[in-house]
Amino acid sequence: MLVGAAEDERVASGVTAVIFTEPAVASIAIHGGAPGVRDTALLEPEMTVPAIDAVVLSGGSAFGLDAMGGAMAYLAGIGRGFPVRSFRIPIVPGAILNDLINGGDKGWGRRPPFWELGFAAAASATKSFALGSAGAGHGAMLYDLKGGLGSTSAVTTRGFLVGALVAVNAMGRATRGPCPHFWAAPYERGNEFGGLGAPEKELASALELKIKGIEPSNTTIGIVATDAPLSKAQMKRVAIMAQDGIALALRPAHAPTDGDVVFAATTGRAATAPDLRDLTEIGMLAAECLARAIARGVYEATSLKNSVAPPCWRDLYGASLSRNGRR
Amino acid sequence: MLVGAAEDERVASGVTAVIFTEPAVASIAIHGGAPGVRDTALLEPEMTVPAIDAVVLSGGSAFGLDAMGGAMAYLAGIGRGFPVRSFRIPIVPGAILNDLINGGDKGWGRRPPFWELGFAAAASATKSFALGSAGAGHGAMLYDLKGGLGSTSAVTTRGFLVGALVAVNAMGRATRGPCPHFWAAPYERGNEFGGLGAPEKELASALELKIKGIEPSNTTIGIVATDAPLSKAQMKRVAIMAQDGIALALRPAHAPTDGDVVFAATTGRAATAPDLRDLTEIGMLAAECLARAIARGVYEATSLKNSVAPPCWRDLYGASLSRNGRR
Repeated sequence: MLVGAAEDERVASGVTAVIFTEPAVASIAIHGGAPGVRDTALLEPEMTVPAIDAVVLSGGSAFGLDAMGGAMAYLAGIGRGFPVRSFRIPIVPGAILNDLINGGDKGWGRRPPFWELGFAAAASATKSFALGSAGAGHGAMLYDLKGGLGSTSAVTTRGFLVGALVAVNAMGRATRGPCPHFWAAPYERGNEFGGLGAPEKELASALELKIKGIEPSNTTIGIVATDAPLSKAQMKRVAIMAQDGIALALRPAHAPTDGDVVFAATTGRAATAPDLRDLTEIGMLAAECLARAIARGVYEATSLKNSVAPPCWRDLYGASLSRNGRR
Repeated sequence: MLVGAAEDERVASGVTAVIFTEPAVASIAIHGGAPGVRDTALLEPEMTVPAIDAVVLSGGSAFGLDAMGGAMAYLAGIGRGFPVRSFRIPIVPGAILNDLINGGDKGWGRRPPFWELGFAAAASATKSFALGSAGAGHGAMLYDLKGGLGSTSAVTTRGFLVGALVAVNAMGRATRGPCPHFWAAPYERGNEFGGLGAPEKELASALELKIKGIEPSNTTIGIVATDAPLSKAQMKRVAIMAQDGIALALRPAHAPTDGDVVFAATTGRAATAPDLRDLTEIGMLAAECLARAIARGVYEATSLKNSVAPPCWRDLYGASLSRNGRR
């Protein structure tokens, strides 16, 4: 599995492409009320296409749905795709987040930049990739902090791999009020998002509802992946369970104007056949990886250079890391 | 809204009926992998029946789907129901949890007891009702603690009421490992489930996966309710958001052999028209009410008098309440 990114700093947006080196069995869960997706109907278990070549996450709101086309064109050029007679059709579902109102210059004229960003993201895919204000996370924002791209992984007790990649552009907060402590803290591993744990004393304002506004300018879009040989229907279960990670890390979650979408894909490369307990653990860890990835995306973000976007976690709270001697 | 309960101590199972004094606009979200439901297809927004008369939660696994019939018969007898020519058809969707293996005597012969329990639960409905090992929570169990029936409520910033009622029979734990501290603690109000907050030091075992087993003998079934005049489609959004409460309170959640089902209903009695922000807050509070209700159901449970069911929270941890001077 390779990950590529492309950003346009003037536009303050970007694209992340996850490329499967072999077609991957995949499904989706859409729990937000305002999703923007492309070519996702085929991910339902009763649909025929057996596997996909890539997943693309893009900024740009629905204009960003061009990005999957760019990634398709790149993949077709290297011979990837579902064979239909003489054609090869790269199967590239994807989802967008709305970063239109983040202060970047969205006056792109006749042709939005997302198709080319999608092509560039796919073409740049490698095993290592940047977190924070990269790819689809480049222009992302939360209520009070800069959003970003996060990723984490875990291993089940029987050795199946689980990982998550997410672009966080949530309506509300990833922290327990105006403080550095992430909602996802109970699931943190190492100091992957600062190691600050829970606050010593909960802020009285922790449970206030603070949101950007009610326009559909919010979305957390992500992908969880495993190596367990699971069916498309089982990957749908993993996607549904993984959506819980959004609830564990963000408040509110799955709101009417959130476009929260989670893809779930498997390389199927593990030698062991997973049983129902394995599937349960994979789904649970997928949720917790996604929750951790959300916190990490916010933690790793850097600020946009304009007056509209909120500050990044590090600018506001970076000092608390050294104070606590955690880094 | 009235709530009734009926239990059979020998069988170690029971039924909870939620009766709407006027038909309520309602929908459903099914996020578990092994649900048992009756007459729920009509709850989808595109279906025609505009409102329902009651929701029934029952023990007994799929045998418990008789209970809705008993509640229907009671309601028909008092003249309730959807008019079709000369008939009145009480609309009573419901869901079950599997308490078959809790040590109760399930040798009921030719006729399972759930139809009569459903009738009795509906007939007993009043404004006040018992929590803990009552109604559908009577025979419920978690991995290491007795389960039960819980309920909580909240009010949005603009004054809409939100409440939750849930029967907790989860696969895993409601606590952060083998300790009295509930996962739902960040959302607790007052000392509704002991007021113990988070543990001072997280147990190393907090994130171990501990489950009853992998048979489909697990389920958290609940209903959230509001007084906001919302459409059936909007109540579907509330149900989807409310499902997050299961993730906030139980680990694992929404597993392949969980039957997690959440109904969402509204009396529509509030005078104010809710906007999207209100809907967002209602859904968020529905999730948090459901999470709190789950913890409270476990907290209020009393033990079953047999050797199979796990101990109740109070028998194991009740002493920690006085130690902390919280009650």
